[in-house]
This record gives sequence, C-alpha cells and structure tokens, in this order.
Amino acid sequence: MYKLISRKDKERRGQIITENGIIETPAFLPVATQATVKAMSMKTLRTLNVQAFITNTYHLYLRPGLEIINNAGGIHKFINWQKPIFTDSGGFQVLSLAQLRKFEKDGVLFQSHIDGSYHKFTPENNVDMQRNLGSDIMMVLDECTEYPTTEEYAKIAMERTLDWAYKAKQHFLETKALYGYKQYQFGIIQGSVYPSLRRECAERLVEMDFDGYAMGGIAIGETKENIRDIIEMCDEIMPEHKPRYLMGVGKLEDIEFAVKQGFDIFDCVIPSRNARNGTLFTDNGKILIRNAQYKNDFKAIDENCDCLLCRNYSRAYLHHLFRANEITGMMLATEHNINYYMKFMEKIRENI
Amino acid sequence: MYKLISRKDKERRGQIITENGIIETPAFLPVATQATVKAMSMKTLRTLNVQAFITNTYHLYLRPGLEIINNAGGIHKFINWQKPIFTDSGGFQVLSLAQLRKFEKDGVLFQSHIDGSYHKFTPENNVDMQRNLGSDIMMVLDECTEYPTTEEYAKIAMERTLDWAYKAKQHFLETKALYGYKQYQFGIIQGSVYPSLRRECAERLVEMDFDGYAMGGIAIGETKENIRDIIEMCDEIMPEHKPRYLMGVGKLEDIEFAVKQGFDIFDCVIPSRNARNGTLFTDNGKILIRNAQYKNDFKAIDENCDCLLCRNYSRAYLHHLFRANEITGMMLATEHNINYYMKFMEKIRENI
Repeated sequence: MYKLISRKDKERRGQIITENGIIETPAFLPVATQATVKAMSMKTLRTLNVQAFITNTYHLYLRPGLEIINNAGGIHKFINWQKPIFTDSGGFQVLSLAQLRKFEKDGVLFQSHIDGSYHKFTPENNVDMQRNLGSDIMMVLDECTEYPTTEEYAKIAMERTLDWAYKAKQHFLETKALYGYKQYQFGIIQGSVYPSLRRECAERLVEMDFDGYAMGGIAIGETKENIRDIIEMCDEIMPEHKPRYLMGVGKLEDIEFAVKQGFDIFDCVIPSRNARNGTLFTDNGKILIRNAQYKNDFKAIDENCDCLLCRNYSRAYLHHLFRANEITGMMLATEHNINYYMKFMEKIRENI
Repeated sequence: MYKLISRKDKERRGQIITENGIIETPAFLPVATQATVKAMSMKTLRTLNVQAFITNTYHLYLRPGLEIINNAGGIHKFINWQKPIFTDSGGFQVLSLAQLRKFEKDGVLFQSHIDGSYHKFTPENNVDMQRNLGSDIMMVLDECTEYPTTEEYAKIAMERTLDWAYKAKQHFLETKALYGYKQYQFGIIQGSVYPSLRRECAERLVEMDFDGYAMGGIAIGETKENIRDIIEMCDEIMPEHKPRYLMGVGKLEDIEFAVKQGFDIFDCVIPSRNARNGTLFTDNGKILIRNAQYKNDFKAIDENCDCLLCRNYSRAYLHHLFRANEITGMMLATEHNINYYMKFMEKIRENI
C-alpha cells in the first residue's frame, strides 16, 4: 500500500494507496474527533484539498454508537467523505478522557466521559468496532502511558501493547471488511521516552507484519529533546517499504523535523483548536487575532494566502468577530489554519 | 426607489432600487446583528441568493465602534458584502438589551450591555452613526414601547418617536453620504396595539416624506390577533409608492399574512436562531433534530431541498452533530434555514 516516489536523505515522498483514494505523503490529517472537523463542513475540507482525516473509535463508539454508523453504510457514507479515512483505536482517549480506567490482561475497562457508563475495549472488539466504522486505515488498541512514567511501567505497558497488537492482528486476519473496500491495519510503537523500549517495540511489531507503523504517545508533555530523540529513531527502526505515522504531533517545526527523519503522516488538533482560540498561522509567525493591535488593522491575515478569510476579510473584521464571540470567526479561522497546514505539506512534498 | 411590478389585491411584487443593487420584493432580510449572520460566511449568504441583510447600529456602535467601520471604508467593505445593507437605528436594542435606559426629550441615555458604560443616542447622532456605517437604508431612532403598555404611555412614546423622526429627517437632509453611494432613510410607525395611534403615527410620518416606512414594535409579546390587527392596516395607512417594511416579524405564517396585506420587507432572527437550537424548517413542518427519533433516520432533512445539508447529509448525521455539540451542526442548520426562507420568499414573489 506504500509507494516510494523520491527520497532525499531520510526524507521520503510517497503515496499511500487505499481503495478510497491515494494520499500523497508526507501528509497531514486534520482531526475529526466526533465525525466532523470542528467548525468545518466536509465540502470545505474538499476545497482545501484535504486528502484524508482521522476520526476516533472511542468517541464514535460512545456517540452516536457504532450501530448507527453501520446502518449508514459506514463512516464514509455517514459523514459524506469519499476519500481515505483513518480511525484511531481510542487507546489514547481512554487515557486522556475516560474517567475511571483499568488495564487488564485482555483489555481496558473504562467509564464514559459523557455519562459515566462502563465499557471495555479489547484488542479484538476494537478491531470489530473499526470494521464497523469502515475506515481505510485502522489503528491497533494500545496502552499509551502518561508522561512522565518510569521505565519499569513503560515496559509493562509496552508488553501489553505488543500482546494486544498480536491479538488485534490475528483478529484482523480472521475478520473481513464490511463495506466492499479493503481496510489496512497499523501497529503502534510505544515505550515512552526510553529509546531501548521504542526499539524493542518496533522490532517486535515489525515481526507481526502490519500494513504500516505509527509512533504513539509522543508530545504529551515530554521535553522537546525527549520528543526529538524518539523521532530521530524513525528511519532506523521503522520499515522502509511501509507508511510511517507520527501520531498527534502537529507543531510545524516538529513536523518539519520529523519529515527529515523519514515520517510520512501526521495528525493533530493544533490547526483547528488554535483557530477556535483565535490563533492563526502565517509565514511570518502566529497571529493572536484577539489582541488589541488588530482592532484597526485592515490588512489580510496573510497576504500570500488564498483562503476565503484572507481573500475577503481584514484582520480588523476577524478581530471583531472573535471579540463578539461570533461562530463565524471560528469558521473562517479554522478554514485558514487547515489551508495553511495543507499548503505547508504541499511545499514539503515539492522539496523532496 | 420603489418600483411596483405587479399587484394581486393588496399583495405587491416590486423592486427596491439602491445604488448597491436591487432587492426583489417581497423580501426577507437575514439578521447580521454583529456584522455577521451567526454561523454563516458572507460567501454562503451569496450562494443562497440572499439579496440584503440588516445589521444594527446599537451593536456596531458599541463593538467594534463606528470609527473602525469608517476606517474600513464603510460597512460593505468591513464585512465584504457588495449588495444592499439595512441598518436598524438600535431603538429596539436600547429597549431589549441595554441595562439602564432613560428616555429624555432629546434622546435616550443607556448603559451598554457589554461593559455598563453610559451612552446617549439622539435622533441626530444616530443619523451620523448610520452615515458612518454607510448602510443603503437606515432607520430613524424611535422609542419602541414594551408590551403591554397603556394607551397613554404608547401615545407619549409615539409623540417622541414622531418628534425624533422629524429631527432625524432634518439631520439626514443636512448631512451627506460618506462613501460615494446614496443612502435612504425609513420612518418607523409606532403605537403599540392601538390602531388609532398607529394610524396617526403613519399619517404624520408620511407628511415628513421618508423614503420608505416600517412598522416597528410588532411581535414582541402581543397576541396573534393584536399583531394581525396592526398588520392589516398596512395598505390603508402606508403609502403605495414606497417600500413597506414589517420589522422583526419572521414566523412564516405571519410573513405570508403580511404579504397579503401589502408588506414588502421582513427581517427576523428566527431562521438563524432556530437553526442553532436544532430546529429546521421543511415543507412538512419543523424538525427538532435533537429528538431521539432522528438518531437512526438516514433520510435528508427535506428531500425537496437543494441546500448543502440536504444534498449531502442525513438526519442521523445532523442529530449526532447536535448531540455532540459540534459547531458544524449549527453551520449546516443555519444554511438550511436561511435557504428555506429565501426559497419561501421566491415562491411568494412568483405567485404575485
């Protein structure tokens, strides 16, 4: 499913080929946690040339429920998006959102953050859930450790992650896609900030032969040095002929760094969340549009940008919309930031 | 500025001609209180064939401030809308939003609902404000009474409204448009639920020779009968050769009734506010999309509707977005409801 197009040192330009379309890599996936990128329509995502996005098993399992999405004919039909879709297993959301959570040998027990109800994810039922969702690329259930964590506990979590990855892979092989197109399954490398654990985890996952590999549990509070130490291992420990996905990392400088180390795919809430807070990306740095300095500034947010916001509205207007708490401001800012990220990745691809 | 095209009993089809474009009437104006229709971009308003909208002097005077809009080159440039724009004087918002308010002979003193600061609107400075905004059609400052109000007080408020209308007209004649296109000024008929006051107010305003006339202070708590009694006076007391505007009335059945009585223009927050609450208009009645019955309903909101929402998404998806508190849901619902109102008015025009 991965085709290498060109290589510059460790950097790679390539394609991830799915039956719902091709993703030119390196690529950034906007996050559609609850089956929408917040404050965006799928139509706008299309006009911005978004190639794919990631949605979340934890969230969609709890609301609206997988039966609904199955009744719709899968996630593509439910949300009206014909291009590739990734689904995260929800391992990270069990860590970050669920109230009580208890890791057991065969799975993780947790309480919904919505209504406190009890649920259990196992590596096997989690594959079934993602079969029901019908994503093009599904992720295995993993145990993402909090940061900081001891090497001892990181090893326990890694062993569980590996055990679950093996079970998820077996179950994946024993089950079928439900909606007429092929699904792929990626393994997730854990091991916190400990390079030897990361290396071991990668090696053992590679033996299981997944369709692609991801680094998980990165940028959850570690120092920049910690993060870079792990990112730098990419080309050494992740197979060359398969996609390499750096999960949840979305600072532009980190993406740039990780591309140079050989990563292909990224996802993060940063462009959309920052937009809703009034932080806009430009080639000259971030603009905090709520700041008083923009009240009377009739320039475009970014004169070089071709998005709806920059072609049509001034900083003063956007400043006003944010100060007046108008949803329209969040919509325009989100469109700008997602567009910025898409263009940023385009430039990266052109330079490889 | 008003051109009659056809007439059926009291109903009239016509055009309101401004230097920024023509409004085919009867027409509905979406409300852009704070310089945007909530959860919509101007681009979407254009695709829905919105002809004009109304924004508000009270709100824009307080935030962002008229100096900002003047610096932008007027409201059209500030919000990037090249077609006609109405501005309300803010008389109604002083009643409904401002904290303290005190009506004096020469104007109304009030406290901002945002920060409690003190301000005074006079008929003259309110014209200056709307000159600064640069709307195509401005409304005079009036005293809108609460409902219920005694006939005695309604008469006091009417006399003040007439006195202010006269002053506003004089000041309008003594001042000039700032942005190179002509502005028009409409008088507002007050008089609460008392037909004799409404009649007297209309007669005396007509003597002042405004460019158009509006009924104000309607649908603020009166019975349906009260409302209809006043609306029925339209053709009798409002001049034939000028536009007739029924302010703030937006229930579909009331618009239908008022068109039959000879009204040309309507504005109301109903389509956009209801959308944000999850209430959608269809030919088969309203849909309350949060209701559980839509959880598993994969039909379009309205099969006969051509809007983004109805062409692309199911009731189940919109239900999910509202239950998950996603802004995207409000955006799609707003687009649908504004489209519904535009199509509703189109049908009304075609039948005259």
